[in-house]
Amino acid sequence: MGSIITGTGSYIPTIVRTNESFDGQTYYDEGQTLIDKPTHEITKKFEEITGIRERRYSSLDLNNSDIASIAAARAIKDAGIDVESIDHIIFAHNFGDIQNQSNQTDILPALASRVKHNLGIKNSNCIPYDLIFGCPGWVQGVIQANTYFRAKEGTTALVIGSDMLSRILDPVDRDSLIFSDGAGACIIQDNSDENGVLATNTCAHTLEEVNYLFMGTSNAPESDPNERFIKMKGRKVYEYALKNVPTAMKDCIDKAGIEVKSIKKIFIHQANEKLDNGVVKRFYRLFGYKSPPENIMPMSVNELGNSSVATVPTLLDLVLKGKMKNHKLEKGDIILLASVGAGMNINCICYQI
Amino acid sequence: MGSIITGTGSYIPTIVRTNESFDGQTYYDEGQTLIDKPTHEITKKFEEITGIRERRYSSLDLNNSDIASIAAARAIKDAGIDVESIDHIIFAHNFGDIQNQSNQTDILPALASRVKHNLGIKNSNCIPYDLIFGCPGWVQGVIQANTYFRAKEGTTALVIGSDMLSRILDPVDRDSLIFSDGAGACIIQDNSDENGVLATNTCAHTLEEVNYLFMGTSNAPESDPNERFIKMKGRKVYEYALKNVPTAMKDCIDKAGIEVKSIKKIFIHQANEKLDNGVVKRFYRLFGYKSPPENIMPMSVNELGNSSVATVPTLLDLVLKGKMKNHKLEKGDIILLASVGAGMNINCICYQI
Repeated sequence: MGSIITGTGSYIPTIVRTNESFDGQTYYDEGQTLIDKPTHEITKKFEEITGIRERRYSSLDLNNSDIASIAAARAIKDAGIDVESIDHIIFAHNFGDIQNQSNQTDILPALASRVKHNLGIKNSNCIPYDLIFGCPGWVQGVIQANTYFRAKEGTTALVIGSDMLSRILDPVDRDSLIFSDGAGACIIQDNSDENGVLATNTCAHTLEEVNYLFMGTSNAPESDPNERFIKMKGRKVYEYALKNVPTAMKDCIDKAGIEVKSIKKIFIHQANEKLDNGVVKRFYRLFGYKSPPENIMPMSVNELGNSSVATVPTLLDLVLKGKMKNHKLEKGDIILLASVGAGMNINCICYQI
Repeated sequence: MGSIITGTGSYIPTIVRTNESFDGQTYYDEGQTLIDKPTHEITKKFEEITGIRERRYSSLDLNNSDIASIAAARAIKDAGIDVESIDHIIFAHNFGDIQNQSNQTDILPALASRVKHNLGIKNSNCIPYDLIFGCPGWVQGVIQANTYFRAKEGTTALVIGSDMLSRILDPVDRDSLIFSDGAGACIIQDNSDENGVLATNTCAHTLEEVNYLFMGTSNAPESDPNERFIKMKGRKVYEYALKNVPTAMKDCIDKAGIEVKSIKKIFIHQANEKLDNGVVKRFYRLFGYKSPPENIMPMSVNELGNSSVATVPTLLDLVLKGKMKNHKLEKGDIILLASVGAGMNINCICYQI
């Protein structure tokens, strides 16, 4: 009935940046005022709030479409399919390709076309496009693929989430310590069995919320007013997610007709450990639980940071490949995928392995 | 059966740039060598090849999502619908928003989210996303909306094509004379009658073709190697389109089960007058016609230039509003929409008014 994920792949960039590695970096606040504290105090407080100890940056010889192609090839190999059988390539990102020593987003041609090229796919009926939907882009790509199959448009999709935030962050802004690079992908296929995608839910709030994440100027004094970086109204994002993500998750399992106790794991966008814990706690409170079940939520943000669209598919790949201890999945298990980000957008998928 | 376009709108930017207005501009070739001819000779030859006499640029106080919002509001008014009834906002573009005095593409948040914000839409079930698919992005957005309706995902979509190429062109490259700014939009709705979308066809060629349109460095000697502009392998694009667009159009009408003589008008991406004439001529030759029927193809490229994703919806809006002489449409008329661009991608829609 629902579409089924038949393969996953990810690429975890090779450069490890610990919090300590930023020692000596100067930080300024939004008002371009120096934060007059030793760096290790700033990063220590940052770690307490976010749980992020280190993050990954890509080496400069690779671009976003390159790491995406690696993750895609791994997903294709995992699924064991012929690349020429892919009907749709959906590439979710927020910053395109970014050349080294530039902060210019390049989306001409679309990154999905570059991946199709890199994979050597000849089939002219394989349609590649990029989907821009904030951090929930990869989850939304899976939802779109599922819709295509229901409309009898193809049977196989490659859905990629890949971003390189290291090239578009403002190094003097403390919030930049959250961001990292990464790529995750899956092959999703039409399926006549009862498992796979059980229900999906998407919502978007754009009145007050449209600029909670945005491109803005540097916190550095006398910085170029025309050069823009990823910026976040952290408090607003936090409050928005805590308020809206739990109910969106509940709506999704209600649609699926699933009881909360049937959920084996929850894969949430890896934004910030404290936020993700808060969301899951509130979600279970909606069902009268005092606290969430143990080991319900695999977490990678502590070591991998927030790689935008890449967090959920990367985490899913790590768990399915047995690379996260205390997190095993078996056929028949029900999981929730959920994301939140720029727009502001929220989406969820209730999925049976 | 098919989805139906219930309203159209466009925004034609206010700054008219004639070929003569470029007098005094210096041009360089790809090898950064000065083209040692008077500018009026260069622009005269350009006009002979492309048919473009003038083009439109947006004023600097507006950004891409602003002109898109104007076109969208006009399409909504034309359709006579409540904005809160829109299920999907699909915004096709290739360069995002670009601040004045910057060539940095900004797609955070997605432009569709900004349009939803500008339109004051409260409905959190209205899902806005950006679609990156080269120049054929708007036509592809209509195809995606049609697919959603067939899967019973909503009944009303706002599909926008809007780009500002004036902010991302290399002013010393002769090819830059092709490009312009513009915004077009439509409301498309699910429909139980027999008219509307009769068939669609999309194809994508990414082996040799992936870099026929790309972001590259300026033709100006000693220009910044990190600053990139829209670049075109003009000859390759021309040959590709002439070879592949006519057969893609034929495949589309074959799918629809329509005879070529039933086609009342063909709306082709306004890339270049000579190219568009060549494509239509070859299309009719596939059916044994010596030449296309008179007035089969409305053209706007001569005055409006090539505004990427905006050309087809703008042209459709102009014809439907009775603003193009010799081009009237009536209920029951069958038309073809077709586009080609970066990827390379081609798509067509066979549509009954």
